[in-house]
Amino acid sequence: MRGKPIRLGFLGMGTVGCGTVRTLLDNQREIEARVGRPLLIHRVAVAHPHKKRDVHLDTGLYTTDGNEVVRDPEVDIVVEVIGGVEPARSFLASALEHGKQVVTANKELLAKVGAELLGMAGARRLDFAFEGSVAGGIPIILPLKVSLAANSIQRLLGIVNGTTNYILTRMSEEGAAFEDVLAQAQKLGYAEPDPSNDVDGADAAYKLAILSSIAFGTRVNIDDVYYEGIRSVTALDVHHARELGYAIKLLAIAQRVEDRLELRVHPGLVPIQHPLASVNDVYNAVMVRGSSVGDVMFYGRGAGALPTGSAVAGDIVDVARNIVADATGRLHESTFEHREVVPIQDTRSQFYMRLRADDKPGVIARVATILGDHEVSIATVIQKESQGGSAEIVWVTHATPEGRYRAALEEIRRLPVVHEIGSVLRVVNGE
Amino acid sequence: MRGKPIRLGFLGMGTVGCGTVRTLLDNQREIEARVGRPLLIHRVAVAHPHKKRDVHLDTGLYTTDGNEVVRDPEVDIVVEVIGGVEPARSFLASALEHGKQVVTANKELLAKVGAELLGMAGARRLDFAFEGSVAGGIPIILPLKVSLAANSIQRLLGIVNGTTNYILTRMSEEGAAFEDVLAQAQKLGYAEPDPSNDVDGADAAYKLAILSSIAFGTRVNIDDVYYEGIRSVTALDVHHARELGYAIKLLAIAQRVEDRLELRVHPGLVPIQHPLASVNDVYNAVMVRGSSVGDVMFYGRGAGALPTGSAVAGDIVDVARNIVADATGRLHESTFEHREVVPIQDTRSQFYMRLRADDKPGVIARVATILGDHEVSIATVIQKESQGGSAEIVWVTHATPEGRYRAALEEIRRLPVVHEIGSVLRVVNGE
Repeated sequence: MRGKPIRLGFLGMGTVGCGTVRTLLDNQREIEARVGRPLLIHRVAVAHPHKKRDVHLDTGLYTTDGNEVVRDPEVDIVVEVIGGVEPARSFLASALEHGKQVVTANKELLAKVGAELLGMAGARRLDFAFEGSVAGGIPIILPLKVSLAANSIQRLLGIVNGTTNYILTRMSEEGAAFEDVLAQAQKLGYAEPDPSNDVDGADAAYKLAILSSIAFGTRVNIDDVYYEGIRSVTALDVHHARELGYAIKLLAIAQRVEDRLELRVHPGLVPIQHPLASVNDVYNAVMVRGSSVGDVMFYGRGAGALPTGSAVAGDIVDVARNIVADATGRLHESTFEHREVVPIQDTRSQFYMRLRADDKPGVIARVATILGDHEVSIATVIQKESQGGSAEIVWVTHATPEGRYRAALEEIRRLPVVHEIGSVLRVVNGE
Repeated sequence: MRGKPIRLGFLGMGTVGCGTVRTLLDNQREIEARVGRPLLIHRVAVAHPHKKRDVHLDTGLYTTDGNEVVRDPEVDIVVEVIGGVEPARSFLASALEHGKQVVTANKELLAKVGAELLGMAGARRLDFAFEGSVAGGIPIILPLKVSLAANSIQRLLGIVNGTTNYILTRMSEEGAAFEDVLAQAQKLGYAEPDPSNDVDGADAAYKLAILSSIAFGTRVNIDDVYYEGIRSVTALDVHHARELGYAIKLLAIAQRVEDRLELRVHPGLVPIQHPLASVNDVYNAVMVRGSSVGDVMFYGRGAGALPTGSAVAGDIVDVARNIVADATGRLHESTFEHREVVPIQDTRSQFYMRLRADDKPGVIARVATILGDHEVSIATVIQKESQGGSAEIVWVTHATPEGRYRAALEEIRRLPVVHEIGSVLRVVNGE
């Protein structure tokens, strides 16, 4: 049973790298049985070999030169857990040129230059696996590629950023302001010292680009994805939304609209009965709508050393099995179709608008007239509490093209009776 | 790109068979691109070739003799969608002897004689895929085999029977009695004319046997699984449970307890905040706890022609890709460990008990004394409404070995002040 070991070369050994190694070592016997050959950590390139780490590897395995990993003739699988585009891209290109199979958890790399690297791997019939790049340990890439391969995927709807979901959950449960919860999340390590990548939506947009490339058999680049973050969501919005029967979540949405794709990340109101509404704290979930299967949802921890390590190690096991079966490159997609992306102003949504205006007769009529002039019809309008001569009014529209709504909004903003227009949020009914 | 077609031979063409064919035909172009070769329905064995079906296949494809499918030298993949043990087992054994790859959705077959067929397939390096046998279209078998392959699985907790989940959901939402909802479910086609396989728990037990075999790398037979159905759950139980903060679900549970396995299917109380509590109607969900990944959940439609067809067709695509890559038998597990099953009386649970007794002082004390004598400690006791001299009392115990609880129950039952002991239900906290 024990044949020649399959040798792993690591690029990086930070949080995810250590989680991967711990997963491999903790379950070594079961993994070896599944693969049919031992897995061996052969070489590890890091900037600081002497840094204290969560896993203890033979110091002789370390090098500071990534080239010593990707060019090592004994390495079978290169595991990239550095993150960021460079030097990861150059090292992986070199690894593929040297005939190595690749496993990576690098979402930014995939969303920015994934097509180039996947193309190289495909041409060489090499495996290039990246389950760890999206939604931590939740199996989603492989189910999309394999289990749902007989479906035409119509929509992805997900919560794929744990930091923002933690913040929105706390805002909802404590009625707290964004800034206060962010500070608390930073203290707990759920948000980075510079949180912009998470709270402004880029991280979720990377993940949506990766998922939608697979789901729709196309090549989605980060530039194709419209994204907004959650900085503009206030405690008041969360409160009003709940009263209306909604939870506010940072949503990643990709859907087919005839031959085109809508790709967007933004906070949205989800009906409280929708399965995504109860995905709280740092949990992630992705709902996939397939032509035959209907809606299926994948749920779990979207980040963390061990959950992400589980995904990376799962990829390593899968690639190792392909090596044993002499079947690498087995899942290479031979065709990609180009798909137009619908500009955000042409997408249709229901909108939630919170505005503060003079508390006097005729205000609702004037706003409603402007909406009507732009053919935006109103589903709900609720006048909330009045304070010092001004009233808070919450509107929810029926589905309308975004451009039309934005144009109405500009006009409403210029009304002298309107003091302030709060967050513009989309309602996602999940239909 | 278009090479020699991969030829499919179907055994059976009922609901699932038609859902599979519709899925394959609806997405033919995309599937062909993914596989790299066309898929062709080559031969179909059915009892009644002239029956009206949801899909229209060339009448020349039909035969009434399954042997003409499994022995046909041109057939690459045999797709078994007959259901039941015989003749499915004999035909599949013959198919494997003739070197065919196998795809099946037959849970009863797998739970009863799966080990034998999987052993034959493994020995011949043939694929034997069965995603459709559990939880309809929800990807669960493949994620367990591949995505979570680097984890040691600690627990499975699932709702895997749509009929009973529909019934319990209706009972909860309408306060209706089991029999009334069952009759309604039969009218809607959500329950069979003879519903015993579903409502008595056997169907869920089949699925648990299949899932736990994979999760724990062992061979679980249906005889190893303790199961109870939902006939004894009353509207009153559902009502009380909700007051206590629980939903009642038919749960399939498999967990490691040291070196042994607990395998059981029974109705249970799940805290209302638990993700499984909001899995309603005919939806299924399986929560998997892995050593690294923590809890991940898979959710979707657990039955129906197209959802199950999606899973069967997904397996066909996967096997076809293996044929193209010359890598069938790639996921063959080379080792199975024997694992002892914990007898149900030795498993530990919290118990919910509803009893009706004389409405007079000292009754609670007498019942509590018996529980105490058996070292069963009480978490909650609530006296509900009194009626005509009798009182309804609801008890929830702390976790206790089932045998000890049952012994106490026998003594309580003999108390003259006790009129009736209602359902005995286990509380599953999901910890």
